[in-house]
Amino acid sequence: MAQALAGPEIERLIQLLGRLPGLGPRSARRAVLHLMRKREELLVPLADAMRVAAERIVTCDNCGNLDTQSPCTICRDSRRDPSILVVVESVGDLWALERAGALRANYHVLGATLSPFDGVGPDELSLPKLVERATGGAVKEVILALNATVEGQTTAHYITDLLTEVGVKVTRLAHGVPVGGELDYLDEGTLSAALLSRTTIG
Amino acid sequence: MAQALAGPEIERLIQLLGRLPGLGPRSARRAVLHLMRKREELLVPLADAMRVAAERIVTCDNCGNLDTQSPCTICRDSRRDPSILVVVESVGDLWALERAGALRANYHVLGATLSPFDGVGPDELSLPKLVERATGGAVKEVILALNATVEGQTTAHYITDLLTEVGVKVTRLAHGVPVGGELDYLDEGTLSAALLSRTTIG
Repeated sequence: MAQALAGPEIERLIQLLGRLPGLGPRSARRAVLHLMRKREELLVPLADAMRVAAERIVTCDNCGNLDTQSPCTICRDSRRDPSILVVVESVGDLWALERAGALRANYHVLGATLSPFDGVGPDELSLPKLVERATGGAVKEVILALNATVEGQTTAHYITDLLTEVGVKVTRLAHGVPVGGELDYLDEGTLSAALLSRTTIG
Repeated sequence: MAQALAGPEIERLIQLLGRLPGLGPRSARRAVLHLMRKREELLVPLADAMRVAAERIVTCDNCGNLDTQSPCTICRDSRRDPSILVVVESVGDLWALERAGALRANYHVLGATLSPFDGVGPDELSLPKLVERATGGAVKEVILALNATVEGQTTAHYITDLLTEVGVKVTRLAHGVPVGGELDYLDEGTLSAALLSRTTIG
């Protein structure tokens, strides 16, 4: 009712913004008021940036990353180690690993993880392309960087079976205490894993 | 670094979205990934809605509300009580009162509240227009619906002084226990106000 008084244009903007993750109806209204106050500095540039993104960003045919070109910047980057392929569920996970910056490798974005209860089977994942990339000869190791959830681990098992047939080495991320983490707040599974994978320091 | 790998277009979109209230860098990244997945259903419509809002939404010359026309829909609405003028700090407050729906009156948006420490003086507020509207003869009561903060109350005093000279009745919102509120969580000031303004019920 309130938004209708400000016209359908604002109502529509609130409704669309409220569909973004992390923004409910209340914060969407606050965001719209902020946008109306910062019309030239934020609203117009944001509308333009969205338009540009909608027109120019594509999914990389090779790895599934988002970029303005396919193959993407990462796939074209010759300074990366071509023998390591890091398998992630989503582009967000790829970004997170790139921010960590520990490894300059190539990626493969699955697009989903196996979830029988949600009806997500192997056909929903970018698996044929992964097998093709892993069997090319250049790749020596596939690192499964999947979430430590039931779905992530189910997917890891499935991919391990696929790739051991191919003869490529398959590894997964280490389990352990998060850096900066307090033991008292960690679950028993994490603590057990951290104990079993303990490192000699002296 | 991560975003740069996905191209400056995505980086710019993340940076702009992160300037919205309620969205930090992490949630802006998640929002962008969501937008890229929902390109036709959300990203394109949102870009269009922002463009339309930037082009068509104006501030009402009469009351300060946002609308596609000036005077705005509320100011044009002849079913509203023209004898009551509700003074608010912001359009967000106007929307909140309209959602409450308790009163079909007219509004006046100040645009700010007095805050000497932040350098906000009377000149920053839409006060001449308020006095003009209050002295037209039609307005019998001005309700100050301002935040119960130091700035809101300072502004309320200032406006009361201005308008009593004019001879119009000035009221303010009641203080008391919020509906659904628990006494144990309320501050002493609110509890004192609620006690002093108690209502006879039997």
